[in-house]
Amino acid sequence: MYLTQLVRRAAQTSPKQIATRFQGRTHTYPQFQDRVARLATGLHKLGLKAGDRVGVLALNSDRYLEFFFAVPWAGGVFVPINTRLAPPEFVFWLADPECSVLFVDDAFLEVVQKIRPEIGCVKQFVYMGDGAVPAGMIPYESLVEGNAPAADAGRGFDELAGIFYTGGTTGRSKGVMLSHRNLVYCALNASLALRMRPDAVYLHAAPMFHLADGTETFGMTMMAGSHRFIPRFDPEEVLKMIDGEKITDILIVPTMINMLVNHPKLKDYDVSSLRHIVYGASPMPEALIRKAVEVMPKVRFIQAYGQTECSPLLTATPPEVHDLGGPLASKLKSCGIAAPGVEVRILDAAGKEVPRGEVGEVCARAANVMLGYWKQPEVTANTIRDGWIHTGDGGYMDEDGFVYIVDRVKDMIISGGENVYSAEVENAVYRHPAVVECAVIGVPDEKWGERVHAIVRLKPGERLDEAAVIEHCKQLIANYKCPRSVEFKDDPFPLSGAGKILKTELRKPYWAGKARNVN
Amino acid sequence: MYLTQLVRRAAQTSPKQIATRFQGRTHTYPQFQDRVARLATGLHKLGLKAGDRVGVLALNSDRYLEFFFAVPWAGGVFVPINTRLAPPEFVFWLADPECSVLFVDDAFLEVVQKIRPEIGCVKQFVYMGDGAVPAGMIPYESLVEGNAPAADAGRGFDELAGIFYTGGTTGRSKGVMLSHRNLVYCALNASLALRMRPDAVYLHAAPMFHLADGTETFGMTMMAGSHRFIPRFDPEEVLKMIDGEKITDILIVPTMINMLVNHPKLKDYDVSSLRHIVYGASPMPEALIRKAVEVMPKVRFIQAYGQTECSPLLTATPPEVHDLGGPLASKLKSCGIAAPGVEVRILDAAGKEVPRGEVGEVCARAANVMLGYWKQPEVTANTIRDGWIHTGDGGYMDEDGFVYIVDRVKDMIISGGENVYSAEVENAVYRHPAVVECAVIGVPDEKWGERVHAIVRLKPGERLDEAAVIEHCKQLIANYKCPRSVEFKDDPFPLSGAGKILKTELRKPYWAGKARNVN
Repeated sequence: MYLTQLVRRAAQTSPKQIATRFQGRTHTYPQFQDRVARLATGLHKLGLKAGDRVGVLALNSDRYLEFFFAVPWAGGVFVPINTRLAPPEFVFWLADPECSVLFVDDAFLEVVQKIRPEIGCVKQFVYMGDGAVPAGMIPYESLVEGNAPAADAGRGFDELAGIFYTGGTTGRSKGVMLSHRNLVYCALNASLALRMRPDAVYLHAAPMFHLADGTETFGMTMMAGSHRFIPRFDPEEVLKMIDGEKITDILIVPTMINMLVNHPKLKDYDVSSLRHIVYGASPMPEALIRKAVEVMPKVRFIQAYGQTECSPLLTATPPEVHDLGGPLASKLKSCGIAAPGVEVRILDAAGKEVPRGEVGEVCARAANVMLGYWKQPEVTANTIRDGWIHTGDGGYMDEDGFVYIVDRVKDMIISGGENVYSAEVENAVYRHPAVVECAVIGVPDEKWGERVHAIVRLKPGERLDEAAVIEHCKQLIANYKCPRSVEFKDDPFPLSGAGKILKTELRKPYWAGKARNVN
Repeated sequence: MYLTQLVRRAAQTSPKQIATRFQGRTHTYPQFQDRVARLATGLHKLGLKAGDRVGVLALNSDRYLEFFFAVPWAGGVFVPINTRLAPPEFVFWLADPECSVLFVDDAFLEVVQKIRPEIGCVKQFVYMGDGAVPAGMIPYESLVEGNAPAADAGRGFDELAGIFYTGGTTGRSKGVMLSHRNLVYCALNASLALRMRPDAVYLHAAPMFHLADGTETFGMTMMAGSHRFIPRFDPEEVLKMIDGEKITDILIVPTMINMLVNHPKLKDYDVSSLRHIVYGASPMPEALIRKAVEVMPKVRFIQAYGQTECSPLLTATPPEVHDLGGPLASKLKSCGIAAPGVEVRILDAAGKEVPRGEVGEVCARAANVMLGYWKQPEVTANTIRDGWIHTGDGGYMDEDGFVYIVDRVKDMIISGGENVYSAEVENAVYRHPAVVECAVIGVPDEKWGERVHAIVRLKPGERLDEAAVIEHCKQLIANYKCPRSVEFKDDPFPLSGAGKILKTELRKPYWAGKARNVN
């Protein structure tokens, strides 16, 4: 199991297939393999040795895909950097794994110049753009054109292929170490669960640094599907590409689907080539799926769930879940069933499987579970216990094996011995028409251990008091789950890079000097 | 990667799906899992310990499928015995791996009673039938009914799951050791390449002891497909089952397809449920595929190729190969392209890849390659070299990555430094209308090293001499490939259990006292 085998097989079995097309550049799989092998030689000439880390900070492109295969072909380890971070985070993500080479495109030249003094580990900068080559950088094509193809370095199986940092709404970033085996095994699972086909044309519309898109990066290459790219998500660009390139598969989030199906120019484009929309991160609202099926009747929707630590796929819905008149329509809020080669269980704190319907922690066991966190063996040991990875997500499984995510385990509140899932309380608060934003956290309480505490921001001009919020919730959820205290806030909530509310920050003032089991 | 995970996932995600139905017995996947876990307890009570081998000598049934999962669930290693062997071979296949338990059904009671004195390793006999329990045997259901379900033994990854003996037309039988990882990885590949679907109803019509059927045993269970069984192949029984059970998938050999499509009662049965016919062992004659498409227009045909040592799948044709008017129709004689997670190369004797179109040895590399041969480390080392398994099959790959098998490497003749593939010469000889049977072997020759020698049996009443055979061949193949000597034979040729001509036997008189590189 070598990640590079995906490219070799695609070049062997689909020699005429277009591997990549982007901004006028087209490469077949044999050409793609040739470029990957030449770029590997280029990396060797930069001094890359087996196991060395290579970062990339760039928008989507065909070269990003080449990067993903050239680095392991050369024996290196790729480190894709989240493009939405702040400069100090870029520094951490490059310095922590000691990247010795950094690939960067036009969009990030400026920030890289700024942080350059702080990333002394990076000895070589490769410029991925087509403009004037910045001082002190090596043009990408010079690493490809002039070089003979390298022999594959032959790293594989349990050797490290890549490090993906997780944003994390809590604590510091963790580098998820994924092996060749992890990624190849996940590609097989993803090809099955996400119905990838050799005649697929996949559009990288989600960011390539994120392993959600990575599912398709590796799965589609394994199936010898064809790759297309847009630098960043833009609804009209997506429509244009679907029409012009006859895209069959995309992977996006529901809000992006919303933007597509409600786009004023939707009717101007022919989107009939589209076969699969894979989405994740949140369930599909019923109104949205109705609208989507109406405007794209041939498309099959698949919800996928996973996490970087699992390479990433854990579960996926059968497409039939989205047939609103069908027998599986009631599963629309679930994130699906275990992928064919993956074991999923809902475990309690003692590691015992909970009965169907009861909430516990979503856990998994399979060859796609990471090697561990980079330089954090204790956190690794705490995350993978008895062979089961603990996702940190609270959820339950129904009688048919469908998994429903309810909350982050870290955001669960233990009040008077009862587990309260903050997401459930938040959903109740949100149903009050005056509320614009809400977060529910556990705060220390002498009597209850933790107390359910709601932080609420109201719509401009609206008024509401603590008692009214509590009374509102009592109409909707069990008494013990209702907030016992409410705080009103005028400013927007602190958000993570991925747009999630940073509850760690919200909890801080309450827990200063006190110990909470998980932060 | 645990083989037993396939059952757990199917029970979890498809609780209402029928796992097995056979002779009036029906079990859903949760019931199947429960029976497997109880049978594991039964095995523990018989004294089975981790790693102990358990043989089975039986025709196809639902209990055979339970056996395949109960043995690893109990921590044991299954050893399915070829039902077509002679008694001394049964003895070897049971004694060599020291099976301590043997499962046997009605069809093999008599022979087992006969060989019992010679298989002292077997301490317990489990009777799989429903008749009167033979003396000294334990009834199968008593190991299930009375027992509580066992916890899964937790063997997995590179631990041994099963030993499959290869018939082998040369030398003594070899026990192929397959790990949990081998079989799970192959199940993923097979599900993709053979287009298995969760709504499939698969008929075990080929013998379950053989890993060709095993591809579907494990793949269909991974996909939570539904299993049906006939004890042994019989064309009308197959038609009856397709009609009655709405079978969607079967795996058979082309001669069996021939029997089906030319069956006089074909029209009496509704075979419209059939979606996939997977076949192997030999290519599909064009006349047969034409006829098959005519009578079963909805069926997609897939040719698969592999060997027990590879768990077994290596290549498969895209179904489109069988669209005779389609762009891939010219590939009908190939055995397909590498399965998604498998690397296939054609290597020369020095381990170097040969150019496309040139014949070499078919080699493969993937996580489905066996652990090795049971107690034969030297043969193992000779078979898996530099990480590549050498299949022993001579073949070539075309420009599109399609593999064509031409001969067993062992049957290749090296004459005057030229490689001559016996199958090619035999094809030429067979085209003479007087010939009924033919085998071409290499015999020692002072001038050429080896000489191409043809052994020919003529149709009754026909006459032909050596010069005429050679002259006939010269019209069809290159001079250096033509036989230089011809021998006529009146008796039928010695055959292996699988019906292959035993060339080892034919070579023996010529090579007595002389060394041939491969025998």
